[in-house]
Amino acid sequence: MERHVDQELKELKEDILKMGALAEEAIFKSVEALKNRDREMAKSVIDHDVAIDKLELDVDEKCIDLIARYQPMARDLRFITTGMKINAELERIADIAVDIAQRTLELVDKPILKPLIDIPKLTTIAQNMVKMSIDAFVKGDILLAKKVLLSDSEANQFRDVIQRELIEDYMVKDASTAPRAVQLLLIARFLERICDHATNIAEDVIYMVQAEVVRHHPEKLK
Amino acid sequence: MERHVDQELKELKEDILKMGALAEEAIFKSVEALKNRDREMAKSVIDHDVAIDKLELDVDEKCIDLIARYQPMARDLRFITTGMKINAELERIADIAVDIAQRTLELVDKPILKPLIDIPKLTTIAQNMVKMSIDAFVKGDILLAKKVLLSDSEANQFRDVIQRELIEDYMVKDASTAPRAVQLLLIARFLERICDHATNIAEDVIYMVQAEVVRHHPEKLK
Repeated sequence: MERHVDQELKELKEDILKMGALAEEAIFKSVEALKNRDREMAKSVIDHDVAIDKLELDVDEKCIDLIARYQPMARDLRFITTGMKINAELERIADIAVDIAQRTLELVDKPILKPLIDIPKLTTIAQNMVKMSIDAFVKGDILLAKKVLLSDSEANQFRDVIQRELIEDYMVKDASTAPRAVQLLLIARFLERICDHATNIAEDVIYMVQAEVVRHHPEKLK
Repeated sequence: MERHVDQELKELKEDILKMGALAEEAIFKSVEALKNRDREMAKSVIDHDVAIDKLELDVDEKCIDLIARYQPMARDLRFITTGMKINAELERIADIAVDIAQRTLELVDKPILKPLIDIPKLTTIAQNMVKMSIDAFVKGDILLAKKVLLSDSEANQFRDVIQRELIEDYMVKDASTAPRAVQLLLIARFLERICDHATNIAEDVIYMVQAEVVRHHPEKLK
């Protein structure tokens, strides 16, 4: 038999999926704007952030309301509190897309420094990690969550390679590239921070699922 | 008459104060390590982070447990969920202190680039913002929370000045300074991110207090 609360928990999942889709879109557009030197697209990422902030508050409010009305125990409660955390992470991810869009606006009218080869790769990793981490939450899939954690070291490596290249092959060799190289270096770091947020989501999912397992199987504690 | 739950809410406040003290200590030590080129102190910040992570999980678990056992309504519930958010912010602040300590380890055996004048100033702002935001939570003091929000633009300005100076007066004028200047630029950005987390805390406090006001005064909705 389906409980009333189940319908609302399903809606919470849908809200998180929507927040996830908006965050992914913001990441995608911010890097497309960078690649295509598209000032309008960069601005649209910045402008759209208000709507994401608004949705975050709505989802947060819904979660508190759900807890107050249903007074859920163990599993449902943990699902809702995890949803609140993931909601906040997704809002932060969208904020970072705004940071990328702002750096992009600094770069669009300056000569291209390099073909950005590794930044799109890091972007793909970041997008996949965000997508997988949300899937892991919606499905309660601990294996998928662990896959996200494994991707994070790859993201760190990409960031470090990009950073080293920008410092040693550009800034040190030709000081005039420094202002542009710093912007790209920051963008690489922003992308890696998106991966960190996806990692936080994945860790929250593992914690949600395992705490539940532990609760139901006290022999697994220790 | 004091309710049982009041004692536990008081303990939650104490836990958040403790998390705050640990986060502030981590910020302080990470910048002291930078100022004094103190490798051991930088390492101690990195090593101590495990204990902060552990306390964060404990506090989070306590909050979920509080909700499950007392099924608190409106005001208490909102206090607990805000506590969970602040707890997470403080853990992130400590993580950023680790980032500062790691950048410091890259710098300790290289020649000093500049006397760091503005980085300690930005550090003081960051420390004050963290302290004020936690006080605002513990006291439910919305005016103090708003003061934190006002400080954030000052922090942004300091970060921008430091960044511009490092790029234009160092990297562009003497390319050999780039590797060290990038580390300092990142540290300035880390400190500003700490201010952002304090801002998040202050916003959560305002939201906690105002939502409550609105709930008790439906005429104020609209």
